[in-house]
Parts: sequence; C-alpha cells; structure tokens
Amino acid sequence: MPETRRKRRARRSRSSSHTDAGQATAPAYLTRRIPVYEVLGEEGLTLIENNAETVLEEIGIDFKDDPEALDIWRQTGADVQGERVRIPRGFCRQLIREHAPRQFTQHARNPERNVVIGGDHTVLAPAYGSPFVRNLDEGRRYATIDDFQNFVKLAYMSPHLHHSGGTVCEPVDLPVNKRHLDMLYAHMRLSDKPFMGSVTSPERAQDTVDMCKILFGDRYQDPVSGEPRTFTTSLINANSPMTFDATMLGALKVYARNNQACLISPFILAGAMSPVTVAGTATQALAEGLAGIAFSQLVKPGAPVVFGTFASSISMQTGAPTFGTPEPALLLYIMAALSRRLELPFRSGGCFDAAKVADAQAGYEAANSFLPALYAGVNFVLHTAGWLEGGLVMDYEKFIMDCDQAGMAAVLLNGVDLSENGLAMDAIAEVGPGNHFLGCSHTQANFRDAFYRSPIADNNSFEQWQEDGSLDLAQRANAYYKQQLAEYQPPEIDPAIDEALQAFIKQRKAAFPDSNIA
Amino acid sequence: MPETRRKRRARRSRSSSHTDAGQATAPAYLTRRIPVYEVLGEEGLTLIENNAETVLEEIGIDFKDDPEALDIWRQTGADVQGERVRIPRGFCRQLIREHAPRQFTQHARNPERNVVIGGDHTVLAPAYGSPFVRNLDEGRRYATIDDFQNFVKLAYMSPHLHHSGGTVCEPVDLPVNKRHLDMLYAHMRLSDKPFMGSVTSPERAQDTVDMCKILFGDRYQDPVSGEPRTFTTSLINANSPMTFDATMLGALKVYARNNQACLISPFILAGAMSPVTVAGTATQALAEGLAGIAFSQLVKPGAPVVFGTFASSISMQTGAPTFGTPEPALLLYIMAALSRRLELPFRSGGCFDAAKVADAQAGYEAANSFLPALYAGVNFVLHTAGWLEGGLVMDYEKFIMDCDQAGMAAVLLNGVDLSENGLAMDAIAEVGPGNHFLGCSHTQANFRDAFYRSPIADNNSFEQWQEDGSLDLAQRANAYYKQQLAEYQPPEIDPAIDEALQAFIKQRKAAFPDSNIA
Repeated sequence: MPETRRKRRARRSRSSSHTDAGQATAPAYLTRRIPVYEVLGEEGLTLIENNAETVLEEIGIDFKDDPEALDIWRQTGADVQGERVRIPRGFCRQLIREHAPRQFTQHARNPERNVVIGGDHTVLAPAYGSPFVRNLDEGRRYATIDDFQNFVKLAYMSPHLHHSGGTVCEPVDLPVNKRHLDMLYAHMRLSDKPFMGSVTSPERAQDTVDMCKILFGDRYQDPVSGEPRTFTTSLINANSPMTFDATMLGALKVYARNNQACLISPFILAGAMSPVTVAGTATQALAEGLAGIAFSQLVKPGAPVVFGTFASSISMQTGAPTFGTPEPALLLYIMAALSRRLELPFRSGGCFDAAKVADAQAGYEAANSFLPALYAGVNFVLHTAGWLEGGLVMDYEKFIMDCDQAGMAAVLLNGVDLSENGLAMDAIAEVGPGNHFLGCSHTQANFRDAFYRSPIADNNSFEQWQEDGSLDLAQRANAYYKQQLAEYQPPEIDPAIDEALQAFIKQRKAAFPDSNIA
Repeated sequence: MPETRRKRRARRSRSSSHTDAGQATAPAYLTRRIPVYEVLGEEGLTLIENNAETVLEEIGIDFKDDPEALDIWRQTGADVQGERVRIPRGFCRQLIREHAPRQFTQHARNPERNVVIGGDHTVLAPAYGSPFVRNLDEGRRYATIDDFQNFVKLAYMSPHLHHSGGTVCEPVDLPVNKRHLDMLYAHMRLSDKPFMGSVTSPERAQDTVDMCKILFGDRYQDPVSGEPRTFTTSLINANSPMTFDATMLGALKVYARNNQACLISPFILAGAMSPVTVAGTATQALAEGLAGIAFSQLVKPGAPVVFGTFASSISMQTGAPTFGTPEPALLLYIMAALSRRLELPFRSGGCFDAAKVADAQAGYEAANSFLPALYAGVNFVLHTAGWLEGGLVMDYEKFIMDCDQAGMAAVLLNGVDLSENGLAMDAIAEVGPGNHFLGCSHTQANFRDAFYRSPIADNNSFEQWQEDGSLDLAQRANAYYKQQLAEYQPPEIDPAIDEALQAFIKQRKAAFPDSNIA
C-alpha cells in the first residue's frame, strides 16, 4: 500500500470520528522536557550494581526446562550447573551496552502512530492480564472477548494512550490455546495503534509474528537493513526470584530472532519474591534483568529490548499485594536510574491499586503509582489505564479515569514554557496590582490551551453539581465510556489484508483442538 | 511549670491513650533523606528572578489602607506613589538573605512536639478555612465549633500530622469577631501540638499572642535572647495580584513584633489572579512574596517567616478553581526552588481537590497535589488533611484518608536504607532461585517495619472484602474517624493555666458586643 494512500486513509479515519481519537494535535508518544528524579546518587547505585553482579556470579539464575538456553550460556563461558547459570562479573553489562539498542521504533498500522521506545520518550499503554472486568452496571464478572474488544476500542479512542496494549483482559470465553488469535485480530482490526504479542507459548509468539507479516505486508521488512521492522513489544516476566521459565524463554527467542521487542521484567512482590527491603529488591531485580536481557542479546545481538520491573510490596499480615505505597515508588526511581546506566529503555509503572471498586482508594493509589513513573523517566508505562484490584480486574470506569491522568501526564512531561509568551511580563504589566487577568489580552490569546481540561472531573459549584445529579467520578466515567463505545468507528483496513488475517486465524484454529490447558 | 513535670505529663498522656497518638516512635516532624526535585535549572530560575525584580521596580506592589506600611517603605528609599510601592532591584532579596532565619523552631505545649520549620524538614498540618463540613452520615452542612473541636482531636490523635493547624474549619455558629478565642482555646486545650494564630484583624492577632503568654508562662520568653519564643505560625495571604491589605498587614506586624512566625503566601488562582502561564504566575508570586517577606523584615529584622504559595489554576470555561492538574505541580517545583535560593522556609501543597465527595476524583487530585509538595521539598504543608471541594468543605472521611497519605509521606521522605540489612545480600543468598522469602530469617527480622501499613486501605481478597461488607474507602474512613473520636482523651493541662485561659476569653468576650461583620 503506497504511503500516500495510507496517509489519506489515516486522515479520513480521523475526520470521520468526532471524538478525541486521532485528533491532529495528539502526539503519538510523549517526549519529556522535565528532568528525571533520582533518589540515589552514584555511590548507592554502584553499590547495588556491584551486589547484582555478585548475585549473578555467586548465586546464579535458573533457566528452567530449556536446554537450548543452557547451551547458549555454556558457550559464553558461564558456569552452568544443572539449570543454574552463574555469570562472570560484568559480562551481562558489557554485552548489553555493546549490542542492545538505546531506543527503537515500534511501528503501528497507522505510521503516524509509530512510537519511539527509549531515550526521553514515554509511551502509555493500557493495563494487561486481568481475568475479570468490572463496571458500575454489572459489578465484577469474568472478562469476555466483547470486553477485550471494548477496551481496544476505548484505547484507540483515547488521545492519551499511545498503545493498544496486549492482553487488555483475558477473554475467558475463548479457549486458552486459541484466544491469542482473537486478541491479536482485535488489536489489528479495531485499532491502528501499536500493540503487544502473545507470550504464553513459543507457537503463539510465532502466530503473532506471522500475523504481523500479513498485516504489515511490504512494510514488514526494512529495505535498508533487510531485517524485520519491530511491530510488537511483548511482555516477558521473570519468575522471581532468579528464575526464567521455558514458556517465557521460548517466546523471547521467537521474538528476538524476528527482531520483535521484549519487555524483560522481573515481576516482584517484595517480601515474598524478593527481600523485604527496597535496596535488596533492587539488587535482585537488576540481577534478573541483566541475565534476561543479556540472554536476548545472545539469542540475537541488537534485538530490541526493554528493561522492566513490576514490583510492589505485600501486606505482611495477609500476603496480599499492596499498591500506591511509598516503598515501590522508591524502588522505581532506583530501577529507572539503573536502566539509564545500562543505556536501556525502561518499562514500569502504571495506575496501580488494590481497591475493589473505583473509589478514593483507587484514586490515591493510582496517582501514587503513576506519578513516580513519570518523574522516574519510564519509557514504556504498561498498566496505565483500567487496573483495579491488584490487576485481577479491568475496570471500565477506572479506565476512563486513568486515561484522564494520562492526559495530565503529557502536560507534566512537557514542562514549563519559558518563551516570552510563557513569561507573560506584558500581561503582568497590563493588569497591574489589584485587577484581574480574566479579560487581558494575554489571557484571551492563551486561555484555550492554558490548562489541562479533564472531561470527567467536576469543578463546578456544589449547587451545579447537585443539579447535574450529584454524580461521583465513577458515575461520570460510566456515562463517558458508554458514549465513547457508542461513537466508536473502526479505522479502515485494506479488505484484502483483513481477509488474509481472518483466513490465517481460521486455518490456525482448525489445526488443533480447543484446549483450556494453558 | 518545671520541665520534668511537663515531661512526665506528656508521657502519661501518651500511655493513657491506646491509639496511635503520641506513640513513642512518631516523629514530631519529618526530616527528608531524599533529594528535592526541580523542573527548572539555573537559567530558568534566574530569568524568573530577574523578571520578579522588574515587577517590583517597574510595576510595584500595593500596600492598601496602611499608612504605617507606606512610611516604612518610604524610609527604605522605595518609590511610594499613593499606595503603590516600587522597590529597587535586589533590595528585598538582600534584606531577606541578611535577616530572615533559614529555619526556626515553633514551640508546642508538649516540648517533644516542637517542630523545626525550614531546612530539610517537613511539617504536615491539617486543612484550613472551610465554612462547611461533610461526612457520610449528614452530607454537607455549615461547620460548628463542635466540628472544629473534632478536627483538633483527630489531628491530635494522628501520628502523621505534626501540627494542629489554624482555622481547621470556620465555626459559623459563633460570632465572627469572637470565634478566634474559641478556636485558639480548642488548639491549646484539646491538643498539645503546635498551632496557628488568628489573622483576621490585628486585635485578634494580639489575642493570640496574649493567650500564648498565658499558655506558655515562663517558657514564653527565651532566657538567652530575651525575645519571645515562636509559638505560632500564622497565615498571611497576599491579595493577588500584587496587593497586601490592611487586615493582613496589621496581623503581620503584630506577629512579627512579637517574634511569631508568618507564612506569607500569594493566594493565586492562575488565569484570574495571575497570568495563565506557569512562568508568568511564578514571576508574580515571587514578586509578591519578596515584597511581603521583606516588609516583615523591615518591621522586625530576624522575625521568623515562611515563603508560601497557594496556587492553582481555574477552569477557563467556568472560572472555578481546579486541583490535581499538572500546571500547579510545575509551579510548585519552581516556587520551592526560588524559596531555596532565598534561603527561606517554604510553605505550599496539601491534599487538594475540587471533588464534592470523597470519591476517586478526590483521591487522584489529592495525591497529584500532595506528592509534588513532598518531592519539591516543602517545609510546611498546610491543607494536608480534610480538604474537599476547593477548600469549601472540611471532610471527615477525607481527613482520615489524607492522614494515611501523610503516613506514607514519612516513609517516602525517609528514603532508601543502604545498610547491610537494607541491601539484604544474606537474604538473597539464603533463599536463592525459585524459592520464596516469606520465611527467611531476614524477612522474619524485618517484616514488622518493612512496609507502610495503612489502617484504612483494603488489600484483602475480593471475597474477604465482600464478607467485610463491600465497603469503599469512604465508608471505612467513616468508621475509623468515629472510633478515633470515641477514644479521644485530652492531653493534661495545668488547671491554673486552663483557668487563666478561660478567664482571659471571658473577659475579652465581655469587652465588646458580638458581631458577624468580619
């Protein structure tokens, strides 16, 4: 499909929707113009780095049920005993800094929505992986493919999310071994933003790659390098502590060999899967990340990769994960700094909470989780929107609330305008002591874009709020998401590509029986 | 009252309460061990400082209805035309850096609760000034002196608030011209934490000083300097743009001459009372702060003073103030940095929101307002707890929620433990790949204090939450505040002092007729 035709379509698609989606001014991703925040200096970070090297060298990392992975490590001169791999000091760091890209472009169906992951950039993606959904009307129930499609549509329509995500919820009405095909099709057909691939088996990772080949056609390969372009960024969790399993390693190998990106993330509930201290957890997470990322570079030097952490603490009374508390924020700042020192893109953060409903707890905890991701300089924020109940639930109303927070993130990261207009000395002189700025020419020229405007926050008078029905934020978000879904229009797609995708899915589904064994 | 006797009482008071209040480990104030965050560098800050000097020199500041203030300015060589004062470049900055203290101690009835304001320290105080209160049972209604007393009790019992605040709500059931006496008495009798004085007239400021003389007795005067100790920190708002009125100036003069501290705060809703841009608002707020603080140092060189800003933006559609948006956070970082360059303690921040109920909007906005105050290095956080509806409402449930956030603030500011125990290499070695940390000796030794524990957040399973009644955060906070009030026990007071305070109040109330004209 020639570039001009695609562009025309993208334009048409935008103008056909009267919603915010695809508005000309919405950036495809964010570029930060404010400094990153760090809690530790050189000395503290070096201490943790040295300890992580000690973990790799003396304690080691398990690569489970994957003889090929052990062979790969053996060839590097690492000490492989059983499935335990002990890696010489500095080996991983050197390999990563030599080969792993500092940033990369993830291509989208709509090229105007390509995102750059790494450097000063931030990409915001929806939440991932919940088996349940919730809304005010139905309460909490298992997620279906309809819900999945709804969240893809809502993410497509939000000008503040840059990414369609991956398993935005688990469509449990579909067989476990085939649902990835329907999920991928939803991302490819109902959105034109970039998306994530399946990681639940190497075969499903290969399906992801094969479907990308169909979807992207002659764009699949970079004509200069001859390599595949990067179309997916997929989530490879370590099994903390210090273990990678065959499922994740298998998916990683497929993606790396096809030049697709992996987010390699220790998934840690501190106190259970790592020490109960911030510095101890950082040490372990760094060791795990170093091993996993180095492995990706051994599989294919230069494969795009993102260092990630998902870490929270647990309630030491009940063992339940907690969110929005200060310890994970401190950890996040450390991990982001460690990632910068590795010159890697970094994934973390999101609007996390342990709340059961989208109440004040959800709000406090989400903001307490999301802001540190912004200040820390996270490049890829998975779980930006919809997360509820420790990730067990994708919540319709909270999705809308979190998208609003994502909109504010763009303003925050954009920093302070120090131009003559930003400094506004003319306005101060024009208005002078004791008067007001509402009517002055500077205000008139700037008020439209002056402040972030939330579509769901209520700033009206109490009396006006009462007249409007005394609705709380969840109730307003409920109306908003329903209106969005009612107004949704899919981006256009080449009918031949759509048919080919559907044919591929049909053929794959017919190739083996349904199964609900993961 | 001899020191030993007072200490014994403080101890008894602590042990007599089974709540968190006054627990031995609760710090009287916080000392930050994490770096401050800044959004602008040297160049940007210098630009704003230079522009603020231009505002002072060329545009000027109005000092209204206070001939003495104009005389004071005239004697400095400032250009006084009518009530407009134009101040030579650099004059205010030099005066402030020569005389204003970098930090000071505000003394409390319980000397163990003295707070240090300035430097690396952070003091958290409740919200201030709302005419309404709200709780789940009664909804929104006008505040009474009973409510005022309740909030003083709740602040006393919270281990996370360091200060009793000032007008925690407006007791509108009492006459305007006498209610300050009852408010002061509540702070003095029902709490032993430090508090704020009345600023609504010079006479009421003098009443505050006189009551402090009674309360603190032979502690009132510092035996070394011969000066009064600082017992109050009172809120002097500028009337932005670029105006101070006689009421505020009158109170300021009383407090400064008695060595009591003033928070000198431009109160700004950007877009109405300042330019619609962050840098323009910062410029104006700095000019206002410089003028007001310099004035305090002209009244009494060395008087304790805090540079403050209260700034939010407005909805440009309705003119209503908005909270928790990114622009005020950016402004806060700038103002805190400007204050550090003046070597002044800084006041700002709080758990702000425009929500009408303690819902998710309240949670998001409060966290989005409070975290920047912590990262910016704010020394005195007024409005930490209870704020609802743009400050019109003091909310019982949100007060409890915000106190919980204040507890998390202490952990955040405490930073990362890099001791051997914090680094936890023994734990990582003991547990090793594939196991869990729950039972390891390091976890056993540390789990009690490992992570912040919220008394109101729900981290249980969905099923447990249902069994507990499916309560949202506001409902849990409702039960919590009622339990706190039921368990409240006042700190002991010398009966003679109590009688003298009551006699003073009786005499003052009899001295002039009730009036509801402010």
